Amino acid sequence: MTIEPGPLLANIDSPDDLKKLSQDQLVQVCQELRQFIIDNVSIYGGHFGASLGVVELTVALHYIFKTPYDQLVWDVGHQAYGHKILTGRRDVFHTNRKYKGLSGFPKRKESEFDTFGVGHSSTSISAALGMAVASQYKGETEKQHIAVIGDGSMTAGMAFEALNHAGVTNSNLLVILNDNCMSIDPNVGALKEYLTDITTSATYNKVRDEIWNILGKISKFGPNAQQIASKVESGIKATLLKQSNLFESLKFRYFGPVDGHDVLHLTSVLNDLKNIPGPKLLHCVTVKGKGYALAEKDQTKWHSPGLFDKITGEIYKTVYEKPQPPKYQDVFGHTMVELAEQNDKIMGITPAMPSGCSLNIMMKAMPDRAFDVGIAEQHAVTFSAGLATQGLVPFCNIYSSFMQRAYDQVMHDVCLQNLNVVFCLDRAGFAGADGPTHHGSYDIAYMRCLPNMIVSAPMNEEELRNLMFTASQPDMGPFTIRYPRGEGVMPEWRTPLQKIEVGKGRVIQEGEEVAILTIGHIGNYAVEVCEKLALEGLKPGHYDMRFAKPIDEAILHEIMRRYDKIITVEDGCLQGGFGSAVLEFLADNNYTAKVRRLGIPDKYFEHGSQLQLQHEAGFAPQDIEKAVREMMAQHVLVR
Amino acid sequence: MTIEPGPLLANIDSPDDLKKLSQDQLVQVCQELRQFIIDNVSIYGGHFGASLGVVELTVALHYIFKTPYDQLVWDVGHQAYGHKILTGRRDVFHTNRKYKGLSGFPKRKESEFDTFGVGHSSTSISAALGMAVASQYKGETEKQHIAVIGDGSMTAGMAFEALNHAGVTNSNLLVILNDNCMSIDPNVGALKEYLTDITTSATYNKVRDEIWNILGKISKFGPNAQQIASKVESGIKATLLKQSNLFESLKFRYFGPVDGHDVLHLTSVLNDLKNIPGPKLLHCVTVKGKGYALAEKDQTKWHSPGLFDKITGEIYKTVYEKPQPPKYQDVFGHTMVELAEQNDKIMGITPAMPSGCSLNIMMKAMPDRAFDVGIAEQHAVTFSAGLATQGLVPFCNIYSSFMQRAYDQVMHDVCLQNLNVVFCLDRAGFAGADGPTHHGSYDIAYMRCLPNMIVSAPMNEEELRNLMFTASQPDMGPFTIRYPRGEGVMPEWRTPLQKIEVGKGRVIQEGEEVAILTIGHIGNYAVEVCEKLALEGLKPGHYDMRFAKPIDEAILHEIMRRYDKIITVEDGCLQGGFGSAVLEFLADNNYTAKVRRLGIPDKYFEHGSQLQLQHEAGFAPQDIEKAVREMMAQHVLVR
Repeated sequence: MTIEPGPLLANIDSPDDLKKLSQDQLVQVCQELRQFIIDNVSIYGGHFGASLGVVELTVALHYIFKTPYDQLVWDVGHQAYGHKILTGRRDVFHTNRKYKGLSGFPKRKESEFDTFGVGHSSTSISAALGMAVASQYKGETEKQHIAVIGDGSMTAGMAFEALNHAGVTNSNLLVILNDNCMSIDPNVGALKEYLTDITTSATYNKVRDEIWNILGKISKFGPNAQQIASKVESGIKATLLKQSNLFESLKFRYFGPVDGHDVLHLTSVLNDLKNIPGPKLLHCVTVKGKGYALAEKDQTKWHSPGLFDKITGEIYKTVYEKPQPPKYQDVFGHTMVELAEQNDKIMGITPAMPSGCSLNIMMKAMPDRAFDVGIAEQHAVTFSAGLATQGLVPFCNIYSSFMQRAYDQVMHDVCLQNLNVVFCLDRAGFAGADGPTHHGSYDIAYMRCLPNMIVSAPMNEEELRNLMFTASQPDMGPFTIRYPRGEGVMPEWRTPLQKIEVGKGRVIQEGEEVAILTIGHIGNYAVEVCEKLALEGLKPGHYDMRFAKPIDEAILHEIMRRYDKIITVEDGCLQGGFGSAVLEFLADNNYTAKVRRLGIPDKYFEHGSQLQLQHEAGFAPQDIEKAVREMMAQHVLVR
Repeated sequence: MTIEPGPLLANIDSPDDLKKLSQDQLVQVCQELRQFIIDNVSIYGGHFGASLGVVELTVALHYIFKTPYDQLVWDVGHQAYGHKILTGRRDVFHTNRKYKGLSGFPKRKESEFDTFGVGHSSTSISAALGMAVASQYKGETEKQHIAVIGDGSMTAGMAFEALNHAGVTNSNLLVILNDNCMSIDPNVGALKEYLTDITTSATYNKVRDEIWNILGKISKFGPNAQQIASKVESGIKATLLKQSNLFESLKFRYFGPVDGHDVLHLTSVLNDLKNIPGPKLLHCVTVKGKGYALAEKDQTKWHSPGLFDKITGEIYKTVYEKPQPPKYQDVFGHTMVELAEQNDKIMGITPAMPSGCSLNIMMKAMPDRAFDVGIAEQHAVTFSAGLATQGLVPFCNIYSSFMQRAYDQVMHDVCLQNLNVVFCLDRAGFAGADGPTHHGSYDIAYMRCLPNMIVSAPMNEEELRNLMFTASQPDMGPFTIRYPRGEGVMPEWRTPLQKIEVGKGRVIQEGEEVAILTIGHIGNYAVEVCEKLALEGLKPGHYDMRFAKPIDEAILHEIMRRYDKIITVEDGCLQGGFGSAVLEFLADNNYTAKVRRLGIPDKYFEHGSQLQLQHEAGFAPQDIEKAVREMMAQHVLVR
């Protein structure tokens, strides 16, 4: 079922069609676009609040600028649904975030209007600056380059790095600061307060007029007064109006704040800005979830609400007869509080993902011990390292793919100093509908090459709890615990906390001929496979290795004595991952068992359900089963 | 030979001794400290200008604060020589940067005064904030936390992330901005211009006094005038004085600028700041190389000049009879210009290392095509990606260990979009005297797990040139070329540019029994070994694989047909590195050759010469020789 667009929107197949509308029709087209997004997301799911917040901005941008010749980069891209709908993807928009469907983010392969693929935050200014500098070099002087970036994304360091560079170029770059005071959770930090100061200050015009009157009179005092008056005026502009400070310090021309929901005013402002050379910033104030009352009211909940009844606002929930396993995220969140209650050294840190990773539970229970530091992975890690130098035990929760942002800090500030920082890598393995930007595919490889780092993954809720408990023991050093997005397997998950010996795997099932070595949640697939094969009297061994590093050498020696065929299974990349760690052990110890490695092969996987992607990658349960059967049937061919 | 310290310095074994001096003696102790640094560095080498620039600041900090109880974090740490000398390391300071000697950077293991290990830039505010928050949590209200950070380091995103977080805490944090307008090269970007505006503006006191006079009179005009006058005053403070803008926007209290070479004034300012709660920033203007005229004049050259005659300022150079091989860095720099002259798509990017990586050659020759973007690795990569979307071919040169800063951008912005960005990873392998923060140990592992990425390493100058040429060919996608610090092997290196087939290794020597597979410059060690063994009639094979990814499968099949013993040699980590790629090939293809992997094992290596460290790691020429002999003597034990 496709959603029926409104009458104006129905005829917009590209921004050229949008440009045919009269100014008067823009308000209506915004209304239709907003409704189309509400209709679609309520039925098909997806991100919600962000796109509603930029409906008017989206329409104004495509109305005024010559996209795709003019280049528009959306930061993160949660907010680009309107952009997709206006740029030829209206009729396939219902496939958004579905397997083989549209990506939830802008993507170069999908459309020439998507100038830069996004997903992680704060890349837009750098990318747009690159495009602008390329245009300068090519002499394309008329070409416009626009980065639309949220105030949340603006807190990440790389946005600042880009501003610092852009400010000293003459590039034709327009940064639109989409200021809605939100990341997924409420935005935090000094920059946010600064922006709020600007937008909430009393109307300045009246004050300015009064002062100008006074300044006229100042000029009567003394010989330097005229000059002083002029300086006073710019002083007033700077602080009283609090407009030009931060960004003008960085050599950007600052404009705004403007109401991001007044489409007519926006078109007029954007039209003016086209003709102003050099780097400039338009501060645009918007409301996340604009036009859908519930979403405006609870913006975190409605960032990505799932399916809902658009009339009543009821968010649908599946009702189960039996208790279901919890999400690993919730186990993390509750266990943090439990651990922290027992151990006053434990602190919690998240870079802007409190609700996503469930640290919000601890932030509520113990606000002085749990910190949202903003979209700032690098700082999150080194801040944690600073805490650890003082004998505290920080649990720094960062999504696996976002941890790539802080790789150097993990190496340089934590591992090299052997500090006891616990890295909880959420969304390890395939992230699902968020697609390739968000898949946590590489962490085993990039973490296990760092000296001092322990790399572990729990197979279930109990193991997650026990690994967290273990990681908080004295002098553990750097400790990674990776786990996937979504549910575990234990409805009764509040088991007593027990220490796990570091580097110790466990036998799930001793067997014959073939041993399956798994790490993490994916081990449950192997359990499933073993149960199925048992019905036919087939009995491969199954070992939950738990640690990719240090790998359990004792159990591996034991395994090598019993089996000559090995299957490794991991929810991570095959290059340098867990399977490779097993190969390294074998080579270093002169074993020659046949090893087949299942995991994420060397290509990018798009979005889809985790299971769809795992099957595509070849390690869904049926793939593991197939591998076991093939290996059992096979005589090992030694070349 | 140890250097004789001056009479005051001779008695300072700790900051407690320093505190015994009268204020009047501080100028002299600064002079002695400066001379001691000059004497030492001229004879024993090391970083020079940075430490000379903070002599007074160092003395003032240790005079006023109760170190190590009060916590002092030096950003980067090049400038911490004075700190080391004052904190008990004067008499071993001549071992600085020598194998087994003092580290060139602050290091927790070395001294309790070194509160945080540094080396990479811009970590200090995050780390000090972590310490300050820990103190808050523990109720240590008197404890002071000081981060000393250069204006160059301040351009990196993570410093901004830390300011953004710190600004909304009540932590007792003092950031000292050591503003000398320099990174190693002159600092660049909008922030630098902003800071220069502040410090070069005409003395503001006179103007301020005049305006205050006027403001007194304003209050006579109208009923709101008093209130307005107060606002005007802060307006004046903000813009006229240009002091409080940027940092006060981020909720820091801003103080300064102060003369960083007036030790008495510094002690008085620092003493006042101790009692001001919350996050605050002291802007301290210094001159890099202060007190040594030549170093003040050419600050880049004297950042780390090598040994020199302290009287004449002559920097010693070894004179060779025969032409010597060039540094890989120079080959890179000159080849960039050569390539760019032939191909107008080629651009050069460096994050603040133009002289270190030799991009300065292109920046001089083609200023519109080569960019120093500041200490901003993340931005450098995504800016390059932006250029690449426009059909340009950016060569982004980043030291291997610094590339860890931009790992996410490599994955998310370049590899995922399969853009033709060429990453030249300088200082790959052991960096030498800079030590563990700077060793480029992990890049093969962390790069080869990323889809679309080509990972290569040249064995000599000609290969570097040819790989660069190859990487600039159309549609190459992401392309990594890693090479070490220092000299290659070809005095006649300006060979004609030739394309290399991607993923194609080459035979150096066909042999018997044992095959040595090398990647990169380290292959020359194998050549040496083979020449030596040939004298005894021993002939292992030697293959220069050139690509860790895609690995040359054809040559590997050929090798497996000829040899049953393999030695892999790489100047990189053994976990997940080149040797593991070979193991993966073997496992995937059912080969069972005995493989011994030489490279950097799973521990941190301190500083020393490259050869010392390579021997310690077990892959210096003599170690390779030993491994070959052992393997030749060995019957393969198959368990």
